[in-house]
Formats: sequence, C-alpha cells, structure tokens
Amino acid sequence: MTTSLEQSTPALVDPEEAVLAVARRAREASRALATATRATKDAALRAMADALVAATDRVLVANAQDVDRERAAGMSPGLLDRLTLTPERVAAIADALRELAALPDPVGEVVRGSTLPNGLRLRQVRVPMGVVGMIYEARPNVTVDAAGLALKSGNAVVLRGGSAAARSNEVVVQVLAAALDAQGLPGDLVQSVDAWGRPGAVALMHARGLVDVLVPRGGADLIATVVREATVPVIETGVGNCHLYVDASADHADALAILLNSKTQRVGVCNAVETLLVHRDVADTFLPAALTALATAGVTVHGDDVTLAHVPAGAAAVPATEEDWGTEYLSLDLAVRVVEDLDDAVAHVRRWSTGHTEAIVTQDLRASERFVAEVDAAAVIVNASTRFTDGGQFGLGAEIGISTQKLHARGPMGLSELTTTKWIVHGDGHVRP
Amino acid sequence: MTTSLEQSTPALVDPEEAVLAVARRAREASRALATATRATKDAALRAMADALVAATDRVLVANAQDVDRERAAGMSPGLLDRLTLTPERVAAIADALRELAALPDPVGEVVRGSTLPNGLRLRQVRVPMGVVGMIYEARPNVTVDAAGLALKSGNAVVLRGGSAAARSNEVVVQVLAAALDAQGLPGDLVQSVDAWGRPGAVALMHARGLVDVLVPRGGADLIATVVREATVPVIETGVGNCHLYVDASADHADALAILLNSKTQRVGVCNAVETLLVHRDVADTFLPAALTALATAGVTVHGDDVTLAHVPAGAAAVPATEEDWGTEYLSLDLAVRVVEDLDDAVAHVRRWSTGHTEAIVTQDLRASERFVAEVDAAAVIVNASTRFTDGGQFGLGAEIGISTQKLHARGPMGLSELTTTKWIVHGDGHVRP
Repeated sequence: MTTSLEQSTPALVDPEEAVLAVARRAREASRALATATRATKDAALRAMADALVAATDRVLVANAQDVDRERAAGMSPGLLDRLTLTPERVAAIADALRELAALPDPVGEVVRGSTLPNGLRLRQVRVPMGVVGMIYEARPNVTVDAAGLALKSGNAVVLRGGSAAARSNEVVVQVLAAALDAQGLPGDLVQSVDAWGRPGAVALMHARGLVDVLVPRGGADLIATVVREATVPVIETGVGNCHLYVDASADHADALAILLNSKTQRVGVCNAVETLLVHRDVADTFLPAALTALATAGVTVHGDDVTLAHVPAGAAAVPATEEDWGTEYLSLDLAVRVVEDLDDAVAHVRRWSTGHTEAIVTQDLRASERFVAEVDAAAVIVNASTRFTDGGQFGLGAEIGISTQKLHARGPMGLSELTTTKWIVHGDGHVRP
Repeated sequence: MTTSLEQSTPALVDPEEAVLAVARRAREASRALATATRATKDAALRAMADALVAATDRVLVANAQDVDRERAAGMSPGLLDRLTLTPERVAAIADALRELAALPDPVGEVVRGSTLPNGLRLRQVRVPMGVVGMIYEARPNVTVDAAGLALKSGNAVVLRGGSAAARSNEVVVQVLAAALDAQGLPGDLVQSVDAWGRPGAVALMHARGLVDVLVPRGGADLIATVVREATVPVIETGVGNCHLYVDASADHADALAILLNSKTQRVGVCNAVETLLVHRDVADTFLPAALTALATAGVTVHGDDVTLAHVPAGAAAVPATEEDWGTEYLSLDLAVRVVEDLDDAVAHVRRWSTGHTEAIVTQDLRASERFVAEVDAAAVIVNASTRFTDGGQFGLGAEIGISTQKLHARGPMGLSELTTTKWIVHGDGHVRP
C-alpha cells in the first residue's frame, strides 16, 4: 500500500514535468525581481547571509550525511574536501553574499544611447536575463554563490548540484528560500532540481524558453555533456590548457618567478599553467635553473628531447608524448617543449590552447605585440602569471565562472555577464516612411 | 566505370569530413584577417563589389537556372521574387558592400580597461569571432551581405544557403573568393557548403571548435531545427509576434498612424505588428475608426467578441481563436483584443510575446514606464511604430539579423555583434601572492 507521503515524493512525478514546473515558477518569480531596486536586493542578500549563519547546525548535519555517504562510496580526498562544510566555511560563504551586496547593481546601466535624426530617442539598457540555470558538482558553496550572483543581477536561479551534495544543497536552498520569503520576495527565486536526478538535469538542459542561460561548472566531461545535450543557450566555462612562453629576450628572473607562480601557486585550477614553451636561444641558459626550481617544487616534467637533456640529476622527468600537449593536468605536472622561435610558439599554442589564458615573458616589444595579436584566448598575458585570470583579481568583484567560449562572455564572468540588454525607444507618434 | 571527375565530385565525399575540411580552411584563413588593418578590409570589400558587378552576366545566368528550376517545382511567387536577381539588384547588393567599407571597424575597440592596484594593466578589446556560420534560405543577397559583414568584422564565413539558390550562390561565392585572392587575402574567407546538401548543413551545425557562432536566418522551422541540432553556439533571429497596446490615455491620431504603419508599411517582416490590444475604456472611441482604416488597408481582423461588435459592415473579420494570439501572420491579418487595463495588456504580451518588439501608445507617463519595465523584449517602443526595430533604422549601419535571444546579442545585430573580446594584461613580472 502506498501512503500519501510516498505519492507526493518527487520520484513518482515525471521528472520533465516537475522540472518544467520549477522553471515556470522561477520565471514567474523572476518578474518580481526584475524591477526590484538595488536596496531590496541587497537587503535580501544580507538576510540570506544571516539566515545561513543562523542555520549552520542544520546545514552541517545535512552536510555530514553527504560526506559520510560519499566517503563510504570511495570519493577521493580532494573532492571530499570540496564537499565538506565547517562553521568557518559556512561563515565565509555567508560573507561572500554580504560582499555581493556591496557591489554595484548591473541592472539599469545604460550601455549606449542616442537621439536619431528623426527624433526617436534610443537607449540600450542592462536588464536581467530572467532565469539562470546552473549545473555543477559536489560543491555546496557554489549553491550559495550562484543564488547570490543571480539575485544581485535580478535573476531567478534553478540549481542542479549533483547527488554527492544533495542533502547539503537541499537544506541550503530551503534556508535561502525562507530568507527571501521573509523579505517579501518569492522563495521560488532559488530552487533546486536535484530531487529529479539525471532525468531532471536533462529536462533542465531542454527547458528552452523557460531558462535563459545555462552555466555548467565542473570537469570537462560535465561541460561536454551540457554542451551536447542542451537546447538552452550555454556558457561554457573553465577548461584551461594554459601555456607560458619564455621568449629569447625574457628577463630570466621574471620568467622563473612567473613560471613557478603559474604552475604551483595553486594546483588544480583552470588558470594554472600546463605547458612551458622555451625559445631555443635561451634553452641552455634558462632551462637548467628552471628545471631545478620545478624539481624543488615537486613538479614532474614531461619534456621533449631538448628539455630532457637539461633535467638535473634526480629530478622527476618523463618524455612528453603527443597527448601531453593536450592535457590539462590540474596537478604538479608540466609539459615542457623547446620551440624554434615566436612563430613556432604561436603555432603550438594555436594547436593546443583551450582558449583560456596564454602568457608570454619577453622584453621585446614587437614579440609581445605579435603574441597578443596572434594568440586567440580569453586572456593573453604579458610578463605576469596566468593565475591572474580571475574575476576577483580583475576587479569584477565576483565570478560565476570563466567563460572559454566567444559568445556573450569571454573570460571571468561577473554580474554584468548575467544580464542582457533591452532597447527602449521613445517617439512622439513616429512612423516609418 | 567511374571517371576521375566523378570521383572528385562532392557527392562522393563524406559530407561531414568535407564540411570539417571547409571549416578548418576557414579557421586558417581567419587568422590572416584577424590582424588585418581596416584599410585592407575596406579595399577588399570594394574589390568584392567591383568583381560582383563585373560578373553580373555570369551571376544572372546561374540565377536564371535556379529560378527556372524552382518555378517549375512550384515555388510561391513571393519566394521566387526573393530568389530572383536582376542587374539592378546585383548593383544594389554590390553597393551594400561599399557601404560596409564606409562603416567604422569594430575590431580593436577597447571596451573597458583599468590599472589594477597591483599595477597590472588590463584592457578588454574587441576581436573577431573567427569563423561565422550562416544558414539561410533562397536569398542570394544574404550570401553577399553575410560575406561582407563577416569580412568587415574580421571573420571568415561558411555559408549554407539552401538548394533553391545553389547555382546563384556557387557563382557568387566563386566571384567573391577570387576578388579576395586578387587582393592578397585568402579566398577561403568566403566558402559555401551547399554542395553537401542537408548532411553538410548538419555537419556545419556540429562543427564546434571550428565554427564560433551560427546565425540561422529564415523561417521559424529553419531556426527551430538549427537551435535543436547545433552544438555550435547559435544566435536565434527573427521570429516576431509583435504587439501594439493602445492605452486609455493614448492620442488617437498617433495610435491610428502607428497601428497602420506597424501593420501595413511592409507585410511579411518580423517587426510588423501581429496583435493589437486596446484598453476597454477607449474601445468605443478608438476601435470604430481603427477597424474602418484597417478594412480600407485590406487587413483581415481576427477579433475577440468586443472587437467584433465594432467591425464596420462589409469589413473582413473573423472570431479570434486561442491560436490567433500566438500566430506570426506575416500577412494582412491582425489579431485584436480588448483588454481590461495595463496589467491585462502586460499579461497578454508576456503570455504570447516572442521577445522581439512590443509597443505602447500612451500619454500616461507611469503607464509608459511600467510597460517598458515589465515587458521583456529585445525592443520596447513608446509612441512609435514597431517597424523601427531594424539595424539600419537604429543607426547600426548594417544588420546580419535581429536576435530574439538574450545571450550575446539582443535586437538588431550589427558589426559589433560579430565580434568577441579578449582580455589583454600587461605586467612587469607580476605573480599572485
């Protein structure tokens, strides 16, 4: 016999219908927010932060259930760490919401405007997208970040956070929705479709017309799946096979510092460098010191023949295969190749770049200008670490991801990138001749 | 026995491989153009115009083959007219290329820039997309327009123009490519995949990583197919179920002029009005004159009950069904409904709008502001004709389509919308702490 409770559980509802109903409620809720003032939105963000801190115990209990289950299922320590919440982490996540409240509101910005010869007055104004979909993995902090960024930019958000963090996300979404409700805003501004599993995620990808943009955030597989499946417009984020090219004219001390920072300041991030290219004229002078420093930092070099000849005794090094040039290691590994010249370096980058961040170290003005012009990436950096490609570092204030596609947003995506524009035209009975 | 000629015909080549080869050549060619100066690009545009005019006879012979075949196959007079070229039309198409040469170059524009607290210098600069794909129907002028817009914005273009105009497009593409070649630019900047039929079009939609953006231009079916099939990012264009709302406070003379202009100045375009909404307080005073004028203009009214009660004797009018509210007639038909108030009008527009252009006629400031804020469309117009939503009318100079989606471009798409941006960062040995 089926109880009424069981009948109402999501598993017994058609996932597609259920997710479309969620998206419709999100769209309806987004209308109330689209015309809300900054003061209203900032108050809601602060209320969300307060509610989250007040609910720390509840959140941690739910999170412990996720962590215990995933640990038993054999999740890797790195992923377990990303999944785990502590009172300090909850406080930090809440603080991020308060920082969002301090940022300017992108909505209402006049992007351009003019009065036409016929007297029509034209303004192109930033407005919210409407409904933003986020598909991500095992990181409860992204749940709050995405909800905050969406709210500040005037959008409703529909979240699909993956089964590993399902309990944590469920409680977090409940807390945020209740805080919005208490502020007189619709709780449907923040909803999750985790309850409908993979079919729910697929339904979200197909909710064209109800969801305005989908931002996948996670590994290459997740992103590829969303790009292939979705009919909702997608902003591809995050895959970075970044190169650092040390030119013949490079300052060697700068080059070494930039190399170590780009590779080791933080491993496992999309703006870490994965391949070092060195001009042949400085292979003899730069590589020995560089390879020694990399070895000291615990980096395993995957080198071409010229590089391997310079590896100091005892350092970890293996011959590079074709596959190495295309690998985003996200680890203490680095592919190293000696190139003939700038053309060879640019050709290598063009062949293997994922269009995220590419850097050159040089003192030659023409070389820097050619590299900047000829390399096609979201960010091209001269004489600085690849690690600077980041919304916070760029002063955008907050970041929902780093776009590696060319449409709509390229590079770090802040609040503006979660908006679209509307042309507003004022006439006085104007008709077209 | 198969001759070598037959072996080399496209039909015997795998369409997917052939189209990917085209896209690869386009990408390679686009690199030469990405760093070309405006002077080089403008000279090429003028050379393309001259070559087209010089090849008028060849183009017309090919076009006559298309027209004869399609007429025999029963193509409608309207589509036949769009397909047909004349010496005057070829000259006009060539002139459009010369006008493009006179427009500013979007490439190189610094969108934003700053020096960060740590001294890093940041610029976000407009750069070409790379390779633009166009999928369109039976209009040889679009072949030239798209090639010109792509070239001016620094992009290669891959065209899929449909079988009806295949011979015309083949000759036009040959002429344009030869003109580019004579200017020292790669002919591969302008290529067609028409030879590979529908499988070729599908391959183009799947050429992610080689083609940066796909712009479908044509009927709702074509656009829906591209949106569903493509893994390449798509900009949806052109479907317009536009509304005109006559508020209680409207100036009746303005409202009548705007209504007639929006409906009849040109039929069959996406910015023509398809539904008229009238505030109930002015139904008695506005509708009789409006319906008489519409009847005189040959417009068939699909009205609700209140509207039908006002239709003058002998005028063409039928009861509106639910389907009428969602129909883009593209003909001398107009759905008409009397609404309770502004809220009712906004609700109707929200329910049925395709997000193209929505207009209000009013003298009430608060009503105009509410309509502008609450209606979600690419263009919201106060006291002017819906027909103004157009790249040329907006002063953008040229238009590749009107985007009805929210990502990347919304409304008329000019040259800027065919570009992306690149962050350029200059440091002096900067590393991240």
